[in-house]
Amino acid sequence: MYTIETIDELRQYIKNVRQSGKTIGYVATMGYLHEGHLSLVQAARAQSDIVVVSIFVNPLQFGPNEDYEDYPRDLKKDQQLLENSGCDVLFAPSVSEMYPREMATFVELPELSNKLCGRTRPIHFRGVATVVCKLLNIVQPDAAYFGQKDGQQVAVIRRMVDDLNLPVRIVSVPIVREADGLAKSSRNIYLTEAERPHATVLYRALRAAADEIVAGDRSVEAIIQRMADTISAEPGVRLDYAEMVDTATLQRPDTIEGDLMLAVAAFIGRARLIDNIPMQVEGNRVRLL
Amino acid sequence: MYTIETIDELRQYIKNVRQSGKTIGYVATMGYLHEGHLSLVQAARAQSDIVVVSIFVNPLQFGPNEDYEDYPRDLKKDQQLLENSGCDVLFAPSVSEMYPREMATFVELPELSNKLCGRTRPIHFRGVATVVCKLLNIVQPDAAYFGQKDGQQVAVIRRMVDDLNLPVRIVSVPIVREADGLAKSSRNIYLTEAERPHATVLYRALRAAADEIVAGDRSVEAIIQRMADTISAEPGVRLDYAEMVDTATLQRPDTIEGDLMLAVAAFIGRARLIDNIPMQVEGNRVRLL
Repeated sequence: MYTIETIDELRQYIKNVRQSGKTIGYVATMGYLHEGHLSLVQAARAQSDIVVVSIFVNPLQFGPNEDYEDYPRDLKKDQQLLENSGCDVLFAPSVSEMYPREMATFVELPELSNKLCGRTRPIHFRGVATVVCKLLNIVQPDAAYFGQKDGQQVAVIRRMVDDLNLPVRIVSVPIVREADGLAKSSRNIYLTEAERPHATVLYRALRAAADEIVAGDRSVEAIIQRMADTISAEPGVRLDYAEMVDTATLQRPDTIEGDLMLAVAAFIGRARLIDNIPMQVEGNRVRLL
Repeated sequence: MYTIETIDELRQYIKNVRQSGKTIGYVATMGYLHEGHLSLVQAARAQSDIVVVSIFVNPLQFGPNEDYEDYPRDLKKDQQLLENSGCDVLFAPSVSEMYPREMATFVELPELSNKLCGRTRPIHFRGVATVVCKLLNIVQPDAAYFGQKDGQQVAVIRRMVDDLNLPVRIVSVPIVREADGLAKSSRNIYLTEAERPHATVLYRALRAAADEIVAGDRSVEAIIQRMADTISAEPGVRLDYAEMVDTATLQRPDTIEGDLMLAVAAFIGRARLIDNIPMQVEGNRVRLL
């Protein structure tokens, strides 16, 4: 596995790969890799000749009071994990390589960015869309793999790629969970031993709501309210939001039908955690994804 | 010359060109072509194996009270002009092909968009940046050619390409003028016979200012004021703006030094016309571009 730190060097590598007719699968990460990330690498590995992974903690997507400085980093360990996962190239640029001067250009999706996590993180998805646009233009992959864990991010990136005609296929990969259901996240490291058991409430609330829908409950507001109540009742947990939304538009549906996502976020100690369950509903038929 | 109307068909063509190792030069236009456009095609022709020209009157860059509906169109004549200019492919998509649904994604350059023409056309450069980003992603050219006539547009596109790492080289091509100095523009057709002679005041004001700078005048505000006065004094002409700006940042400079642009805009009857003179100033040495 090569580690490449500059855009020029990566472009040269990509150009050679392209000329040999090989396909490129790409996984964008902020590092501190866990099994969720590695499942993305595996998906890319299975479908591509060359797998490129980037590690870049993107300052543009962190608000002024968020955890940009504290965000966990361990490049050495990440390199080892990627080496063992069939990654061909790790792209690990510095902040000054990605942002040599103050950005004047932003990719904005106002309607998809002001909902769910966007309510507490108003500039987050502008930062995500802008850096992913940059990275896709640098790596120029055939397909890019994103975790369903960040469900709103997937919606934002899919829509950006579609609206801007970016020549790449977006693939979302299911959430990887701990044995007790907690979604794998680099930010789980913020949880104290005392907080950790309570963090499962996100998945418990989602799972109960999903089960209700499978059982035939079709009352949008009541299901949302029960998720909110479950999370709020958990000691040491502060609800950010509980929602049911159309997977693509992120709008709350009038009826439980089509591609939907149950989505929650909560603060636990220093951590802000998110989780979701996407599903396809056709009448009585409910398929959890 | 092929005329291609769908994105899929163009992508297939581009893919074949790419696989044969040929280079692509691209000219984005709104049609109703004049010698200014054809000079862009010539520049692309001279530097590329394949020349792609697009004609698309982009609704996203017109304000609600602007001339989107009235904007002149003549595809048959444009096709003939392009055929004779060495264009290989004309891409002429419909509005529904470019915007199959309402856009949720916008490429924004707020700092470069709120100046000069952006003051009277607040959404214009968002529309320009967004559609050019789309078109560059569709055509995937090695180089794209834009007229210096739209000097602010060139600054916006250069900065967007740089900030978003779009894999394309941007080339700006000098303004083509009528014998009396009026910059060629599709919108000159709006001028009545009575208005037409007065339209030369834009270039006269710019040229006088440029001559003053060449002669050693270094008073930013006074030079700007004289351009404004010259245009305002012309019968039937209403000044929009007269400015001197840094070519890249579009900010008014403190001193006349570096890459600068004299830029003016004015309303004449139904027409809103723009013009500029870019220059490089190093001490006493002034190079008009």
